[in-house]
Amino acid sequence: MRQRSHPIVVVLGGPDLPPSIQAIKERAVVRIASPDRLQDELPGSEVLFAWRARPGVLDPAWAKADALRWIHTAAAGAGALLTPEVIASDVLVTSSRGLFDEPIAEYVLGLILAFAKDLPGRVRLQERRTWQHRETERVAGRSALVAGTGSIGRAIGRKLRAAGMVVTGVGRVGLVGDPDLGEIVPMDRWLDALRFADYVVLAAPLTGDTRGMLDNRALSAMKPTARVINIGRGGLIVLDELVRALRGGVIAGAALDVFADEQPDDGSPLWTMPHVLISPHMSGQVVGWRDELVALFVDNLSRYVEGRELRNPVEKKPPTG
Amino acid sequence: MRQRSHPIVVVLGGPDLPPSIQAIKERAVVRIASPDRLQDELPGSEVLFAWRARPGVLDPAWAKADALRWIHTAAAGAGALLTPEVIASDVLVTSSRGLFDEPIAEYVLGLILAFAKDLPGRVRLQERRTWQHRETERVAGRSALVAGTGSIGRAIGRKLRAAGMVVTGVGRVGLVGDPDLGEIVPMDRWLDALRFADYVVLAAPLTGDTRGMLDNRALSAMKPTARVINIGRGGLIVLDELVRALRGGVIAGAALDVFADEQPDDGSPLWTMPHVLISPHMSGQVVGWRDELVALFVDNLSRYVEGRELRNPVEKKPPTG
Repeated sequence: MRQRSHPIVVVLGGPDLPPSIQAIKERAVVRIASPDRLQDELPGSEVLFAWRARPGVLDPAWAKADALRWIHTAAAGAGALLTPEVIASDVLVTSSRGLFDEPIAEYVLGLILAFAKDLPGRVRLQERRTWQHRETERVAGRSALVAGTGSIGRAIGRKLRAAGMVVTGVGRVGLVGDPDLGEIVPMDRWLDALRFADYVVLAAPLTGDTRGMLDNRALSAMKPTARVINIGRGGLIVLDELVRALRGGVIAGAALDVFADEQPDDGSPLWTMPHVLISPHMSGQVVGWRDELVALFVDNLSRYVEGRELRNPVEKKPPTG
Repeated sequence: MRQRSHPIVVVLGGPDLPPSIQAIKERAVVRIASPDRLQDELPGSEVLFAWRARPGVLDPAWAKADALRWIHTAAAGAGALLTPEVIASDVLVTSSRGLFDEPIAEYVLGLILAFAKDLPGRVRLQERRTWQHRETERVAGRSALVAGTGSIGRAIGRKLRAAGMVVTGVGRVGLVGDPDLGEIVPMDRWLDALRFADYVVLAAPLTGDTRGMLDNRALSAMKPTARVINIGRGGLIVLDELVRALRGGVIAGAALDVFADEQPDDGSPLWTMPHVLISPHMSGQVVGWRDELVALFVDNLSRYVEGRELRNPVEKKPPTG
C-alpha cells in the first residue's frame, strides 16, 4: 500500500465522541457527520470511521462515496455496515473486535454471581430496611453453556472457568478440548446441550442459524432453575416467548443487555419482573472505552497513511440473517 | 481415646435446625436446648453442639457442666465459646472452619463485581423504568487488600486472583510469595498498605490488634475511589467513623455483611446510602449449608464415639480483644 498524506476522514458519530478524537487531525482532514449529514460529507472522503452505525445508515449515502477506500467501525462486529454494495466494492472494512472481550466477560461473571447470591433481591430488601436471611447458591461447579465461539465467547469461557464453573461452548462446528471453552457442541445439538446448563450465555453473532435461537423450544429444554444472559444481539431471543417462559416458571431468570428494538418499551413487563435484569447495551463499556476505541482507530489510521497492514480486517461476507 | 457409647449431646440451637439433625440420634442421646434452657440440659452431658452461640451464652450455664468433655461450634470461629473457664478446663473445642471458605470467597467476588459494574444502580434504574447508559469499571488489574490470613482470607485471595485482581494480604506476620495471598504485609504496615487498595476486604478474626482496625486513620489512608467489604466481624469497623467517611466521600463504598450489634437499627443512615450494600451475615450461607454443618458434627461425633481424632480442633487461647 503506498503512503498517503492527510486523507479526508468522515467520522460518523454523535455527541459522545471523546475529546481524544482530536488526535485524528494530526493524520487526516476530519469531517464529523451525523447520520443525516453523511451523504453530504462522503464525497471526496477516503475513510469512514463509523462511531455509531445503525443498520441501514450507509444505504442513502452510498451513491456519494466516490473516493471511499476504507471503513472502520467502533463496534465489535461490522454487520451493520456490510451492505451488498460494500461487500461488492473493494472498500476495506475493519472492526473494533477484541476491545470488549474482557470487560464483557467480567460483566457476565458479575451477572452470574448476582443471580447466585441474589444481589438484586438484597438491594430491594435494603430499600425496605428489611433484614432477612436468605440462602444463596454456589457458582463453582455449576455449568455454563456459552453460545458463540468468537473472541467474546472465548473470553467469557475463560473467565467462568477461572471461577470454577463447568463451561461448554456452542458453535457452528463441534470440537473437544478447546482451550477456552472446553467442549464445543455444534449448533444442531443446541437443544440437547441446553438441558444441562445452569446458565445460558448468548454471545453469538446474528445469522440465519442463530436468529431466534432462544425460542419456545429452547426455553422448554432448559432447567426450571436455569437463567439466560444475553450480551450478544437482541435478535437471538424471541422476546415474547422468553417473557412467557419467565412468567410461567419455565426458566428462573434472565439478564438482558441487548434488545432487537434497542430498548424495551415503557410498558414492557420485563421492567418489573423480579428475576430479570435489564441493562442498556453496556456490558463492554468500561471507563475509558471511548478513548480505547479512538486509539485503535488512530493506530489503524497511522497504518493506513503509512501503507502498513490494518488491524482487525473484516472478511466481507453477507450477513446470513 | 477410648470408645464411648451413646453420650448425652446437648444441641444449643434454635428453630432453624435442619431435619438432618435427627442423624445424631443414632450415635447419642440428644437434648435440644434454647440458650435460656442450657443450664438445665447441661448436667450429665458429655458433648455440647453449639448451633447458635452468642458471646456469653456459656457463662450462666458453665457451673452445670459437670460431665462436659467436648464442645463443637457450628461457626467458623470458636471465639464466642472461649471463656476463661473453657480455656482453663480440659474440654475439647472444635469448630466448623473450612465449610464457609469457598461460598464466602464467591460472595466477596460477587460484591466486587457488583461495585465495579454498579449492579445495585442498575436495579434501581430498572425499578424506575429508566434506560441510562453508564460506564463501568474493570476488575482485572485492580488491587485487593485482604485482611486475614486464615482459611477464609486465603480462599478470598485465590478467588480474586483467579479473576485477575492483584491481591495483597494483611496478617500478624509478613510474608512474600504466599501461594494464596501473594505478599502478606504485617499488621503494623496496615495503614501503608491501604493506600494502594481499590478494595479492602476484612476477613480477620476479632482480636486486640484487629478490633476497630478500620477507623478514621485507616479510612483516611484509603483512596477516595476505594470500597471496603466486611465479611469478618462487625467489631473490625468503627461504624460511625465509616458512616462519616462514606458521607464525606473519603471512600467510595462499603458492603457490610456483619455488624457489631448483629443488625443496624431501623434509623441507621446505612440503609439508604447509595454506595452501601447491607446483608444479614449470609456471605457463607449457600443452599444446604445447615446440612453441611450437621454432617460435619455427625462425622466428628462418630470420631468421638469411636475414640478417633476430631476434625477442626481449636487451639484454646484467650481472645485478645
